[in-house]
Amino acid sequence: MRVGVVGLGLIGGSIARDLKSQINVTVYGVDKNETHTEQAKELGLVHEIISIGEVTLDADVIIVATPVDVIERLIPQILDTVGPQTVVIDVGSTKSDICDKVKNHPNRHQFVAAHPLAGTEFSGPEAALKGLFQNAKNIICEKDKSSDRALEIALKVFESIGMNTLFMSAEEHDRHLAYVSHLSHVTSFSLGLTVLDIEKDEKQIFNLASTGFRSTSRLAKSNPQTWKAIFGRNRKYLGEALDGYIKTLSEFRDAIKENDVERMEELMTEANDIKRILN
Amino acid sequence: MRVGVVGLGLIGGSIARDLKSQINVTVYGVDKNETHTEQAKELGLVHEIISIGEVTLDADVIIVATPVDVIERLIPQILDTVGPQTVVIDVGSTKSDICDKVKNHPNRHQFVAAHPLAGTEFSGPEAALKGLFQNAKNIICEKDKSSDRALEIALKVFESIGMNTLFMSAEEHDRHLAYVSHLSHVTSFSLGLTVLDIEKDEKQIFNLASTGFRSTSRLAKSNPQTWKAIFGRNRKYLGEALDGYIKTLSEFRDAIKENDVERMEELMTEANDIKRILN
Repeated sequence: MRVGVVGLGLIGGSIARDLKSQINVTVYGVDKNETHTEQAKELGLVHEIISIGEVTLDADVIIVATPVDVIERLIPQILDTVGPQTVVIDVGSTKSDICDKVKNHPNRHQFVAAHPLAGTEFSGPEAALKGLFQNAKNIICEKDKSSDRALEIALKVFESIGMNTLFMSAEEHDRHLAYVSHLSHVTSFSLGLTVLDIEKDEKQIFNLASTGFRSTSRLAKSNPQTWKAIFGRNRKYLGEALDGYIKTLSEFRDAIKENDVERMEELMTEANDIKRILN
Repeated sequence: MRVGVVGLGLIGGSIARDLKSQINVTVYGVDKNETHTEQAKELGLVHEIISIGEVTLDADVIIVATPVDVIERLIPQILDTVGPQTVVIDVGSTKSDICDKVKNHPNRHQFVAAHPLAGTEFSGPEAALKGLFQNAKNIICEKDKSSDRALEIALKVFESIGMNTLFMSAEEHDRHLAYVSHLSHVTSFSLGLTVLDIEKDEKQIFNLASTGFRSTSRLAKSNPQTWKAIFGRNRKYLGEALDGYIKTLSEFRDAIKENDVERMEELMTEANDIKRILN
């Protein structure tokens, strides 16, 4: 099988790395950033770097792993030009806009809208990790709009890198991810900004940073290019999630300012229920 | 050396465990919670469980590791009754209130106000970890109010469990910790609450929880008893930190809702500076 991976960052690079080690898989890499293609070659993420034009001609499967705004531009173009046997998969973190964009495309059935749930706060080909997707969940949206054959091939690809696939609507995906992924990124970026702002006056403050601070602000290292596109695409649900979060946080702040220990205890006891999920 | 540890939770239990393995150290444990004393005995955290009255008579060093509101009540009582050679150390996460409480005590010089910067989201004697403090930082406040002898003994204790000690005022401690520890706990509790609230309608949402969600909400498992006292004691600085955080977060939310990708990118690029500290 000839697989073309378009976008050789954390996600694309990790997919390429896992696929390249498989028998009978040839991995072509595409990236408009020359530093990325150089790094991908050096790191051995792909067999060969080719152009976007060549990949549409030569690949059996094309996986698009660019930022989501670029995915939306590329997928229709790729579907315009590929042969009838090629399967096109996107692995972006938002799904409604891309599904909407191709809903009337004559080759919609060759396309599978996916989101493998894995990642780190790092980016670029050097962040690509072997086994990143092992035992993680993959989501495929609007599966009825993909042909049986396209779906089967996509499932095989994700299974081969260790993933279990769930199915849901694009709306449901975006709403859920707003809460259990995108919101955490905004809280982390904001926490980083708040403490960096204090550092202007208190040069030594980070000497005291706890492991708790490290884990809550880790995602503030994430790539702005990737995340501005995700946040923008998911602004409806993420906006709702942030409204809810700011409301809860303001209530908590008020209880703290008033030293209302009873209310604080209620809120924290309720939050402790997270043990049921995270343990 | 006979060391009494009052409060055998995560911090007290971990200190007890590390001290007990040292040559010529006898560790007495005190805890009003019988489940805790039973667990501490079974886990071998201490040589012997004794009463608070006995510990003031028998110990060379008394380390108080209860919630901070209890520390404030116990330290003056302990200083009232100990002999002139006993050193009394508290390891609470806030320092201004306790320092204020004992500032005019005739035995103030026998007291050392400390805060070893280590912990996990778990609590109780079963959460006690060997080596928890290894290579971590300890803070001692108002060192000039402790006698040279008391300070020397306290430093030796913290050094023996692997810690480097920094010195600062109690005010400075509380202000800094509001930002690099306490704030992270409030953001984590609030994130847990926000997503638990959505789970009422979306039963499967946590199936999709990312590693990012896990690390940003991990602290929501923390002990409400411990943290309500800390939040209350540090309400002035933590209130300020939360005001700043909510302001930044609201600005970020507005940029997202308006799909202002330029502003989002600015905020995230600025937040990326956290790499300088966390890498």
